[in-house]
Order: sequence, then C-alpha cells, then structure tokens
Amino acid sequence: MSLLVLGTVAFDTIETPFGKAERIIGGAGTYVAWAASHFYQDIKLVSIIGDDYPEAELAALRARGVDTTGLEVRKGEKSFFWAGRYHNNMNSRDTLATELNVLADFNPKLPAAYTEVDYLMLGNFAPAVQMQVINQITRRPKLVVMDTMNFWMDIALEDLKKVIAKVDVLTVNDEEARQLSGEHALPKAAKAIHAMGPKTVVIKKGEHGALLFHEGQTFFAPAMPLETVFDPTGAGDSFAGGFIGYLAKTDDISFANMRRALIHGSAIASFCVEKFGPTRLQEIQPADIQERLQQFKNLMHVDF
Amino acid sequence: MSLLVLGTVAFDTIETPFGKAERIIGGAGTYVAWAASHFYQDIKLVSIIGDDYPEAELAALRARGVDTTGLEVRKGEKSFFWAGRYHNNMNSRDTLATELNVLADFNPKLPAAYTEVDYLMLGNFAPAVQMQVINQITRRPKLVVMDTMNFWMDIALEDLKKVIAKVDVLTVNDEEARQLSGEHALPKAAKAIHAMGPKTVVIKKGEHGALLFHEGQTFFAPAMPLETVFDPTGAGDSFAGGFIGYLAKTDDISFANMRRALIHGSAIASFCVEKFGPTRLQEIQPADIQERLQQFKNLMHVDF
Repeated sequence: MSLLVLGTVAFDTIETPFGKAERIIGGAGTYVAWAASHFYQDIKLVSIIGDDYPEAELAALRARGVDTTGLEVRKGEKSFFWAGRYHNNMNSRDTLATELNVLADFNPKLPAAYTEVDYLMLGNFAPAVQMQVINQITRRPKLVVMDTMNFWMDIALEDLKKVIAKVDVLTVNDEEARQLSGEHALPKAAKAIHAMGPKTVVIKKGEHGALLFHEGQTFFAPAMPLETVFDPTGAGDSFAGGFIGYLAKTDDISFANMRRALIHGSAIASFCVEKFGPTRLQEIQPADIQERLQQFKNLMHVDF
Repeated sequence: MSLLVLGTVAFDTIETPFGKAERIIGGAGTYVAWAASHFYQDIKLVSIIGDDYPEAELAALRARGVDTTGLEVRKGEKSFFWAGRYHNNMNSRDTLATELNVLADFNPKLPAAYTEVDYLMLGNFAPAVQMQVINQITRRPKLVVMDTMNFWMDIALEDLKKVIAKVDVLTVNDEEARQLSGEHALPKAAKAIHAMGPKTVVIKKGEHGALLFHEGQTFFAPAMPLETVFDPTGAGDSFAGGFIGYLAKTDDISFANMRRALIHGSAIASFCVEKFGPTRLQEIQPADIQERLQQFKNLMHVDF
C-alpha cells in the first residue's frame, strides 16, 4: 500500500486582487502531496527541483509521511517557476512568466520502492513524463488517476491521448473536458472521454462544484460557497489530492466511496483558496477538516 | 389556502442553435403557473393579455386548476411580445424585440377571491405592478416569494427595493444578486439582500444549480446535468413555480421543507429546457416527475 504522486514542485509568484506573493512554493506535486497527506501518510513523490528549493519545505513534507527519495535535486539548476495574475472575478488568470528550468529535460527514474504501489496520481505534467512513470510501474496499481490541462491538449494531444488510454480516472475542468471531447454538454463530454479509456471521469467546475461520471451513474459534489476566495492557485490539485488521499486511506474504489472521496477533495480545496499558495494546506488540523465536512453535510442535506 | 401568481402572459419568438419557434406562448406567469400546477391546483393568476391570446391555452390552464378570473383581457389590444436569440453556449441571449403592448399601462385589480391567499408568487414584473398586488392583499400571506431581473435594477431600483423590503423570499440569478448587492461572493450578496428585507434568498445559477440562504444556513440544490438543453426560456420561472407550488402543496415553510422545494423546482426546470417554450411543462405526468426526482437522489446521494 502506497500512493505514488507525480507532479511539479516549483516556485510561483501570484497576484490576486488581495495582494502579491513572490516566489512561494507551488506546483501540482506540492499541492497534491499536501492535500493527500491529510488523509493518508504513505506517499511517494516523484518530481524534480533545482538546488534553489528550500530544504525546510522538503523536511515539512517528509514529516507528513511523504517519501522524497524520488524527488530529483539537480545541482546548479533552478526549479520550475510560474507567475500569474488573477482577474477580479478570480475565475480567469493571465500567465506572466513560465520558466521551465529543470523541467526542460526531466526523465523521471523511479526508485525501486516506487514501482509497486496501489494508488498512482499522475498530477499535471507533460504527457510524455506521465507515460514514463506509467512505464516504470511493475505491478498494475489498484487505481490510476490522471490530471492534465488544456496546455497539453494544445501542444501534445496525441501523447496525451496515449496516457489517457491507460488511466482509470481522468480529472479535468469543464472547459478542458469540452476541448478534449468536442462536446459542449458535460454528460456528452464525459461519454466521449470514457470512450478514450477512463472508466471514471471527474469534471471540475471550480466554484460550481464537480461532477463524477462512472458507468452511467452521475454524482455531483458542490463547492463550499465562500465569502472570500483569496488565491485559487492549486485548488484543482488540492481537490485531486484530497480525492486520491481519501481513496488510498479507505482502500475502497467503489463508486459509493468515490462519491465520499469527491466531497473530501472539495473540502480540502475549500481550504486551499483561503490563503496564498499551500499555506492553509500546511496549517489545517483534523478538527478543521471535520468541521468543514460537517458544513458540507449541512449544505447538501435534504430528504425527499 | 390558495396560491396567487403574478407574472406576464405573453408571446415569445425564440431562436436557439436547434431552431426557431415563432410566437409561442410564454411569460413568467405562464411558466410559474404551469410549473406550480404539477404540485398544487388552487392557483389564481393575475396578469393581462390582449384579445390575440389563444383561448385554448387559457382553457388548458383552467383545466389544471388555475383560476383566470384575475387575468384581464383587453379588447382590441395585443399581448406582450418578446423575441430573443440564444448564443451557442445557451448561457447568454440577445433580445431582438420587446413590444410592451398591454403591459404599457397595466394596473392589476384583484378579484375579491384573490385578496386572501396563503401563498403569493410575485413573478417577474415591473416593481410598481408587484407593489399594486401586495397593496390589494387584505391578509398577510404565509409566504411571499418574489422574482425579478436585472432590467428592473437598471431602470427602477428604488421601486424594486420597496417591494423587496416586503417579501419573505427573493429569487434572483447570480449576476442579479451581485448587481443588487454590490458583492461578488454569493454568501456576502445574500447577507446584503437579507438586510434589504427577505429572510430567505434563493440565488439561481442556471446549469450550476441554486443556493438557498436562510438565517445563517445554506443549502445547495444541483441542476440536473442534461445532454441537451433545447431552450432555456422560462427555466428560472419554472424553478420558482415548482418551488412555491411544492411549498403550497405541503403547506410547510420550514427551512427543511424549503430544501425539498428547491429540489422540486430544479426538477421542474430540468423538464422546461427540453423543448421550446412551456411544451414540456404541459406534457409531463406525475410519473415523469417521480423519475426525475429519483435521478436527483442518485445525483446527490452520498454518506460520509
């Protein structure tokens, strides 16, 4: 039993209407690992950083049960860097800078202990890198979840489709589901994506919640209506991390449990947006999560 | 026990990516009455039409239990007419024509039997007309629900606020809630609207569901994910009609029952969009509604 997480570990500079955070830690791998660690502690992280990445942040991850032996540290090089500015409604953003740095020629090498895992989370990364990880796995995991983004649909669609064909669950946002499938209506988009391979499709709608499609069944998980969304960065990754972390903890991939996992992902994502970067994911305690889950129960409760 | 419904009764010409429907019946009063009639049959309609309106449609309403003695028919004049064209995503539309006709100088006169009702639905109408109806009510109803739209916020905000101050429940869409309150975050918008009078605020988000805010509690009702949205016209009115029709039927205005009523409103609205105009509202049978409610249960079911 282990959860293997692939995803970028990086620096972000983020501007929102509330302020600016310079070169804070970020990246899909960071958010997924922190989010999943609230439910499950046997996590193995595969990624790459330069020697500019703060050792204290790696130590904090290790203290959460995250194995970083698969995190390549390249001497004399810089970590991936992204800078972006959110618009006033927080629903759209402009990318101000992207510096690939160590990502430019990353070829992941899984340590032996990483090659037999029960849960695999392929966080957002170049499809070719996601495929390299799949190819080094020696025993089929119980569940492979993949996240991606429109960027890869634009520049590497064929590679992307090869990875999609190999996973159990694809998580994309609504616009990405439309782009990938060519269908506007989300139930039709999910059907088209099922036909590409994944038996389960999660369509993330940000503040509008998420839909789970699986063998003709559909589940809807709302997002918590929040008074303040401080920084949306990493919300989708946190959602995916909470989702797979809960599945790994409970070791149950039934549709009924995936419904629960989606709520747990929504709960973790609702914390993520409350402060800049992964700050809230690093602060929250089990009691905070229990309280938020109770708020979700209140939000969703109806008998008819 | 009666439900009084105010709302336009009109002709619409509707263009969607699927086709065009010329001069079909429409108007908020038509949609609210048809929607509510699936749950409750003692409905009194107050509105105005010209002598161009088809008698068969009025007979169909009366056969559903809708009292039309408060529907003024003005000889030699034409009914209200609206024409619009939906964009490809169905989320936005252009108004192509608005002919007020009989609406230009409508001053509703409630028949005596209309002045003591338990439920009052002020469908979308000029705030001054909504106020005239309130002023003719001789006994405070158990519940007054009001719908409105951004148009009245633009041209009659002071009148609108006077009506809002007198109602128990305000239903508006998300953009209207933001415009009315000046707040972007919907929980903040709801608080600001509570301060204007309504103890209960329903914020409609179309395909993204609806939020119910009441005394610090929040409930979220999803919309049914549909493969085809044929014509969104009247969906919000149908939602409001299903909501108040269910409340009138059960005669229970507790928050727990409002949660159920919101699901019933969502179910009725999900039928409305399946064909042009109110066609589906006129076709569906109790078994169809029961089946749709079961689909909502499946969509929402989770235990955690």
